[in-house]
Amino acid sequence: MSESLEKAQKMARSMLSSDNVEHVQKALQPKIENIPKLTPADSLNTQEKAEQRLTEAGLNPEAVSALLDKSTRKDFGSYSESVENLSGTIRIPLGIAGPLQLNGLHAQGLYWIPLATHEATLVASYHRGIMALNGSGGCSVLFLNEGMGRAPVFTFANLSEVAGFMSWALLQREKFIELAANTTAYGMLNDIRFTVEGNNVYLLFEMLTQDAAGQNMVTKAADGICNYIAKHSPVKPSSWIIESNLSGDKKASNQSFLGVRGRKVTAEAEISADVLKRVLRTDSKALVAAWRTMILGGTMSGTIGAQAHYSNGLTALYLATGQDAACVAESAVGITRFEQRENGSMYCSATLPNLIVGTIGGGTGLPTQQACLTLMGLVGAGHARALAEICAGVALAGELSIIAAIASGEFARSHELLGRLRKRQSRAQTD
Amino acid sequence: MSESLEKAQKMARSMLSSDNVEHVQKALQPKIENIPKLTPADSLNTQEKAEQRLTEAGLNPEAVSALLDKSTRKDFGSYSESVENLSGTIRIPLGIAGPLQLNGLHAQGLYWIPLATHEATLVASYHRGIMALNGSGGCSVLFLNEGMGRAPVFTFANLSEVAGFMSWALLQREKFIELAANTTAYGMLNDIRFTVEGNNVYLLFEMLTQDAAGQNMVTKAADGICNYIAKHSPVKPSSWIIESNLSGDKKASNQSFLGVRGRKVTAEAEISADVLKRVLRTDSKALVAAWRTMILGGTMSGTIGAQAHYSNGLTALYLATGQDAACVAESAVGITRFEQRENGSMYCSATLPNLIVGTIGGGTGLPTQQACLTLMGLVGAGHARALAEICAGVALAGELSIIAAIASGEFARSHELLGRLRKRQSRAQTD
Amino acid sequence: MSESLEKAQKMARSMLSSDNVEHVQKALQPKIENIPKLTPADSLNTQEKAEQRLTEAGLNPEAVSALLDKSTRKDFGSYSESVENLSGTIRIPLGIAGPLQLNGLHAQGLYWIPLATHEATLVASYHRGIMALNGSGGCSVLFLNEGMGRAPVFTFANLSEVAGFMSWALLQREKFIELAANTTAYGMLNDIRFTVEGNNVYLLFEMLTQDAAGQNMVTKAADGICNYIAKHSPVKPSSWIIESNLSGDKKASNQSFLGVRGRKVTAEAEISADVLKRVLRTDSKALVAAWRTMILGGTMSGTIGAQAHYSNGLTALYLATGQDAACVAESAVGITRFEQRENGSMYCSATLPNLIVGTIGGGTGLPTQQACLTLMGLVGAGHARALAEICAGVALAGELSIIAAIASGEFARSHELLGRLRKRQSRAQTD
Amino acid sequence: MSESLEKAQKMARSMLSSDNVEHVQKALQPKIENIPKLTPADSLNTQEKAEQRLTEAGLNPEAVSALLDKSTRKDFGSYSESVENLSGTIRIPLGIAGPLQLNGLHAQGLYWIPLATHEATLVASYHRGIMALNGSGGCSVLFLNEGMGRAPVFTFANLSEVAGFMSWALLQREKFIELAANTTAYGMLNDIRFTVEGNNVYLLFEMLTQDAAGQNMVTKAADGICNYIAKHSPVKPSSWIIESNLSGDKKASNQSFLGVRGRKVTAEAEISADVLKRVLRTDSKALVAAWRTMILGGTMSGTIGAQAHYSNGLTALYLATGQDAACVAESAVGITRFEQRENGSMYCSATLPNLIVGTIGGGTGLPTQQACLTLMGLVGAGHARALAEICAGVALAGELSIIAAIASGEFARSHELLGRLRKRQSRAQTD
Repeated sequence: MSESLEKAQKMARSMLSSDNVEHVQKALQPKIENIPKLTPADSLNTQEKAEQRLTEAGLNPEAVSALLDKSTRKDFGSYSESVENLSGTIRIPLGIAGPLQLNGLHAQGLYWIPLATHEATLVASYHRGIMALNGSGGCSVLFLNEGMGRAPVFTFANLSEVAGFMSWALLQREKFIELAANTTAYGMLNDIRFTVEGNNVYLLFEMLTQDAAGQNMVTKAADGICNYIAKHSPVKPSSWIIESNLSGDKKASNQSFLGVRGRKVTAEAEISADVLKRVLRTDSKALVAAWRTMILGGTMSGTIGAQAHYSNGLTALYLATGQDAACVAESAVGITRFEQRENGSMYCSATLPNLIVGTIGGGTGLPTQQACLTLMGLVGAGHARALAEICAGVALAGELSIIAAIASGEFARSHELLGRLRKRQSRAQTD
Repeated sequence: MSESLEKAQKMARSMLSSDNVEHVQKALQPKIENIPKLTPADSLNTQEKAEQRLTEAGLNPEAVSALLDKSTRKDFGSYSESVENLSGTIRIPLGIAGPLQLNGLHAQGLYWIPLATHEATLVASYHRGIMALNGSGGCSVLFLNEGMGRAPVFTFANLSEVAGFMSWALLQREKFIELAANTTAYGMLNDIRFTVEGNNVYLLFEMLTQDAAGQNMVTKAADGICNYIAKHSPVKPSSWIIESNLSGDKKASNQSFLGVRGRKVTAEAEISADVLKRVLRTDSKALVAAWRTMILGGTMSGTIGAQAHYSNGLTALYLATGQDAACVAESAVGITRFEQRENGSMYCSATLPNLIVGTIGGGTGLPTQQACLTLMGLVGAGHARALAEICAGVALAGELSIIAAIASGEFARSHELLGRLRKRQSRAQTD
Repeated sequence: MSESLEKAQKMARSMLSSDNVEHVQKALQPKIENIPKLTPADSLNTQEKAEQRLTEAGLNPEAVSALLDKSTRKDFGSYSESVENLSGTIRIPLGIAGPLQLNGLHAQGLYWIPLATHEATLVASYHRGIMALNGSGGCSVLFLNEGMGRAPVFTFANLSEVAGFMSWALLQREKFIELAANTTAYGMLNDIRFTVEGNNVYLLFEMLTQDAAGQNMVTKAADGICNYIAKHSPVKPSSWIIESNLSGDKKASNQSFLGVRGRKVTAEAEISADVLKRVLRTDSKALVAAWRTMILGGTMSGTIGAQAHYSNGLTALYLATGQDAACVAESAVGITRFEQRENGSMYCSATLPNLIVGTIGGGTGLPTQQACLTLMGLVGAGHARALAEICAGVALAGELSIIAAIASGEFARSHELLGRLRKRQSRAQTD
Repeated sequence: MSESLEKAQKMARSMLSSDNVEHVQKALQPKIENIPKLTPADSLNTQEKAEQRLTEAGLNPEAVSALLDKSTRKDFGSYSESVENLSGTIRIPLGIAGPLQLNGLHAQGLYWIPLATHEATLVASYHRGIMALNGSGGCSVLFLNEGMGRAPVFTFANLSEVAGFMSWALLQREKFIELAANTTAYGMLNDIRFTVEGNNVYLLFEMLTQDAAGQNMVTKAADGICNYIAKHSPVKPSSWIIESNLSGDKKASNQSFLGVRGRKVTAEAEISADVLKRVLRTDSKALVAAWRTMILGGTMSGTIGAQAHYSNGLTALYLATGQDAACVAESAVGITRFEQRENGSMYCSATLPNLIVGTIGGGTGLPTQQACLTLMGLVGAGHARALAEICAGVALAGELSIIAAIASGEFARSHELLGRLRKRQSRAQTD
C-alpha cells in the first residue's frame, strides 16, 4: 500500500474537483487570442496617468483614492523616480518599539525601532525582547566586516585558455581598482576572488560602498572592469555575463558565514534570571532547551544557518527605513546562540553576516521612510554601520521573545493574550 | 604570508579608526544606568497616543504628519488591530505591471499585477517578462499541492518511552483530526508526520487552511492537540514545545521540494525566437547559457533551490496584496528551468513549493491592500489558489526578464537605459 | 588592496613555478597522438590475465605478488564476479573494537565491531566510546524506518500533458506494485512520491528490500515500471530516464531527515559523571559546550545535519562487513545531540536516517568480509536491521570519544598519547 | 485522512511484529548486568594476540585464517602501527582501469587507475569513461589551489573581550607562522581566517602540507599556536577547543567552493559526436538533457554541489592508493557540467574543491597500496598534486559513463549487459 500516492490522488481529485481532465488540460493550454498587446512600462510618471491606469483597470473611485490619496499626490514627485507605472502608494501600519539600548562603536545609546507590519503581536513581541535586553544593560554589538559583491563570469574555449587568462588577470589589480574608481565617487574595490569551474572563471568583486547598500555601485564598477577585460585580455573570452549568481544576490546562501555580503554584525547580551522571569516569563534552562531543539529542528528541515525568525523583524525594519525588503531573503540568515550561565542568567547572541542596509539611496529618501530614519537619528551619510548594528540588536530581541514564548507555552496563546491585554489596557484607561 | 589575516587587520583598523581598544571595549560594555524602564507595547491604539509617541521621540510636525497623514487618520481604526504601538503608516510606491495572461485552473485570463517597491526598474523588468509571456499565449500554471504546517516536539526520558508514546500516538489519528476541528471553522488536519531524533518526537501537523495563509489556524490546532497529548498520553513527555523549527516557518528551507509548505505551483511557457528577440533582446542560446551558469553559480554559493531573484517580485506582490512579507524569506525558493527548443524558441518554467499566501486574514483587509486585491479580482474567499498561481507566473516573468538582461549585457545598463527611456518618453509626450 | 587576489597570485606563481604560461597551456592541451586504443573492461577474469596485466603495467614480481598473493589466488573465484579487470586484492588492516552492548529490538546483546582502517587511533577512539556506552548499560537503539529509492523522471511537452499523465498515473498503484513484484522475489514497492517541476514528473519509488541494501533491486523494479509507463501511458512522455538524481544515491542530501533512504535508526545513552570522568576524562559541562560549538561550527561551514565524524566509523565498518563504502558519502549525515542531566550525567543520541546496509548481496560474501559478519553473528538473511542498529551505536560511540578528546584538550595529543600508551603496554608486557 | 500517519503506523506494526510494546520497551532499556569490563584498545599488536582475539570471539579456524592469512602475517609489522587491536586484514578486489591520458601540469601522460571495489560494473563503467576521454585527446586538468585546515575556537566572556583579543591576535601573524613551523618540518601556515560569532572567535588555520594529506600536521601546528594564545593573549579566553567543526573535516560542506580544503582541481574534455556514439552509445543532446535534469534533481534533494556519483570512483581510488577513505564524505562534492558544442560534440568538466590526498603518510606505505601507487608512478614525495589531478580526471570519466548509461537507457540493464558481455568474451576466448 502506498500512502503518499493516495495523498497525491486525493490532492489531484481536489484539484480536478468536478472537472474532467480535458477541462484542466484545456485550461492550461496557451491562449493565442484576446491577449492585448502591451507597451513597455512607463517611467515618465504623472498623476493623470496613474489615475487613468487605475480607473481603466476597473477600480471604483473609493479604491482609486485609497491608492492615490492626498499625501501620495502631494509627494508624487518623490515617488516618480522610484517605480515605473506609478499608480499610487500602499500604506503599511507602523508600530514603534523600544527605545533599545545599543552598546556598539557605531550605534551607542537608545534607539527607537520603527517596524512596518500588519502582523499583530510582532511589535509587541520585539518590544518585549527589547525590554529584556535593556533590563540587562542593553545589547552589545560588534560590527565585523562589510563589502558588497558582484560576480561576473568569463567563459573560455578550454582550460588552456583559462590558464592564459588567469596569468594575465592576476596582475591587473591596480588597473581593476582604477577602473572601479572611475565609475563611482564613493565606492572602492576592496577584494577580488577568483573561482575556476571548468572553462568558467568567476570573478567576485567586493566593494566598500560607504553608506549606500551599494548594489548599483558594484554593478557599475563590475561592468566597467568586465568591458575592459573583454577588450584588453590577451586571451579573449568566448562570452561573459555580469552576474553568475555566485554573489548571493537576493537569495539565502551559505557563503557569507566565512566572508561577508553587505554588512556583518554580532550582537549579545547576558540576561539575568530576574529579567528572564519577569519580562520573558521563563528561565534559562527552558530557554536553552527550546533553543537547542530549534537549532536541530531547523537543521533537519534544511535551512541555512541557525535561527528562529530573523525575517520578521528585519522585514519590518527594512520597510520602515527604506531598505530593499526583497533583500531580507538573503539577510535573514545567521546564528542565534543561547547558553546557560551561573545564577540562572543566560548568555545570548545573534550573528548576521549578510545585512544589506544603507542610509542613503534606495527608499531612504521617501517621505515616511525618511521620517523613520529621523526618528532613529540615522538620516544620510555616516549611519549605515549604526543601522547594521541596530538590525543585529533587533534580531536578537526577536529571538529572545519568540523562543521565550515557545519555551513558556505562550506562543499559541499570544493572540488570545493580546486580546486580553487590550481589554485590560482598555479598562485601565477608562478607570 | 597570510592575506586573509591582512584583510582582517585592515578591517579591524577601519573599525577601530582613531579609537583605541579601550574605547571600543568600553563602548561594547553593558550600560546599567540611564536606561528608561519600558512598559509592554500598547495594543489599545489611539491617534492621540500615536501623535504623542512621535512627538516625544523628537519628530518635528512635518515628519509626524508624514506618518500620520489624513488617510492614515481616516483609516486609523482599520490599522489599530494590526499592530501594537501604532504610530502611523509608511507609504510604498505602487507600480502596476501587466495584465498577465494566466492559463490555470484557478487563475484563468488577464490579471493586473500590483507591485509595491521603491527599486527603480523592478516594475519595468517584470512588466517586460509579462510581455514575453503574453506574446507566447500567456503563462500556463498548475497548482500542485497545499498544506500549512506546525511542528511541535515532545521530549521523553529515553527511547523506551518514545516507543511507548509512538505506539499510542499512531492510533490517535481520528482524535487528532477531531481536536483540530474543534479549534477552527475552516481548517482541516490533512497529515501528521512523525520524526524521531533521540528522545525527541517531532509531529509535523499539516492543515488545509482554505483561503487563509493559515499560520494562526495551524498554531491553534496544534496547541489543542498538544495539550490533549500532554494530558492523555499514557507515557508523559518530560516537556514539549509548540514549534521545533522543523516546519520551516519564516526561513528558506529544503523540505518543501519533496512535500509542500503553503501552496506549491509550477508555471511554464514556450517563448518563440521572435518574442525572445523583440521583447527580451536576446536568443534562446544565450539565455540557456546564462541560465546554466547561474544555476551552477547559485549552487556554489550555497543557496537552496535554483533561481535568480524570486524575492524581488514576490516581495513587491506580497506587500501590495497584504501578504506577510516576512514569509518571502521562505517563499523565495524554487527551481527555474530554461531549455532550448527547435526553431529558436525556448521552454521555461518556475516551480515554487512554498508560497505563503491567502486572500482572507493578515493584511488583506487593509485599505490599499484591498484595493490591490480588487484590481486583481481576488477579494475574499475562493481566491487563494489563484493568487498562488499568479505568484508563480510573476516569478517566471521576473526570471525571464533578469536573465535576459544579463545574457544580453543590458543588466548593468538598465538604470542608464531607464534614464534614456524617460527622456525618449518625455520627448514623445511633448511632441 | 586586495588580499585574496594576492593569495591567488601566489598560488598561481606556485602552480607555474619556473614554467612559463606557454608551457602550462601546452601541457593542458589535448594530445591526439600516442594514446593507445583501449578495449572495454574484461569481465571474464583469470589469474593469468591478472598477472599479465600487472606485469605489463611495469610492476616488479614483488609488487605483483603483493596484489596477487596466495590468498587472493586461492579465492580468485569469489572475487571474479565482483569486479572487472580483476588484478588482485588490496589489504586493509582490521582492528576489532568492543564488544558493544546494544539494547535494540533487532540487535540485542554484545557485538564485536570489526573496523577496517589504516588511520591510527581510530579503533582506539571508537573502542573508548564503546567503553563509555557499556559503562552506562549499553546503547539503546530504535529502528525507525526503511526504504530504498530510485527516482526516474518523465518529461512531457507541457503542463497540459503533465496534468493528463498525472490523472492516469495516480490510478496505477496496484499495477505498479505488480510490475515491481515481477522483477524481484524479495522486494516490495512501498511508496511512490510524485514531484512535478515544470514539464518534468519525478516518480520516487521506495521499496522494502529485506536484507539487501537493495539498489539493484529498486533499479530493476523502477525500470520495469518505467517501461510499462512509456508503453501504456495515454499521454506519451517525450523522454524519460531511470534516475533523476532526486533519490540521493551516493551523495549527502537533506531529504532523508523527513523521510528515509536505506534504513533509519536512532541511538542513545545516558552516561554517568563517573564514566565521563574515568573513561572520557572530561565532564558533561565541557562536553555539552564542545558539542554546542561544533553544531554551530558545522552549520556555518555549510554541512548537512549536525555531527562530528560519522564517516570515520561507518567507513571502517562498511569496509569490514562488505557494504558499499561509496555509500558512506550519503550515510554519514545525521544528528548528534548531547545534553546535561542532573548529577553530572549526560544524555547523548545519534540519529542516522540514511544507512545503506545489508547482510546479503554486495561484498558480504567475500571471504574476509564474511568472516567479519560471522564475528558479529550477522551472516545472511534476517540481520540487516540489526546491522543498521549497530551502525548507529558505533556512530554514537565515535561522537562521544572524539568530542570528549576535543573537550578535554587531548585531540591533538592523541597520537602522542598513543605512542606513550604503546610504551607503557610494552613495558607491562615485558615485566 | 492522513496517509503519512498510516505509513508510520504500518512501519510501527512492522517494527513491533508479534511483539508487544512492553517487550520493545524492555529491549530498549539499558542493561546493567552482564556487560564485561573492557580495557582500552591494545596498540602493541602481535600475531598471537590477533589470533587469540579472533578465536575468543568465536571464529572458527577457517575464518581466522581468512583474516590472518600468510600475507598478513608476513606483513604484520607494516600493519601494526596503523591500527589498534590489529586482528588481520580484509581484502578488497582490485580492478585496473585505463590507462587514462591526463594533460596537466602535474599529471602528464598515461596513468593506470587502480580501483578497489566489490561493486560489479564500477570498473567497467569508469574504464568506459576513460575510453571516451582518451578518444578525445585525454583529460585536461588544472590544479587550482591547496591548503589543509584546522579550526579551533576561543570563547570569551563577552564581545568587549573579543574586541580586545582580536586587536592583539591580528598582529601575531609572524609569531603564528613561527609557532607552526616549530611543529613540522614540512608544513607551512599559509592563511588564517577569523570568524566571530557572539563571544566565540574561530581561527581557521590553513597550511600547505606538501605531499601529505596533512590532517595531523595542521592539528599539531594549530595546537602549538592555541597553547601559545592561551598563555600569552592579554585577554584570556574562558575556554578553547582545537576543532570547532568549521574546518569541514570528514563531512560534505559548502565552504570549499569559494576557498579550498585539501586540493582543488578542475578537469575537462571535449568529446566528439563519434566518440559519444561509439563509446558512450548516446549523443550530446541526450547527455545534456540528462545532465540538466540530474543537476536540478540533486538540488531538490538537498545535496551540496552538483554531480552524479563522484564517491564511487573516489572511494575505489582512495582505497587502492592508501588514502583515508573516510574523507570521501567530504571529497565527493563538486560541479559536473555538460554542454552541447557544434558538430554534435560535447564539452564536459568536473571541478572538485575538496580532495584530501597525499602520496606520503596515511596508508600509502602499506604493501598493496604501495604497489598501486607504484603502478601509477606516484610513490613518495613530489606526487600529491598529480594524484589530485588524476582524481579529478577519474571523477569526470565516471560522470560521463554513468550519465551516458542513464541517458541511453542502459543504466538498469548494465548488470544484464555485463552478464552477456561475460558470455561473449568467454565464447571469444574459447573459440
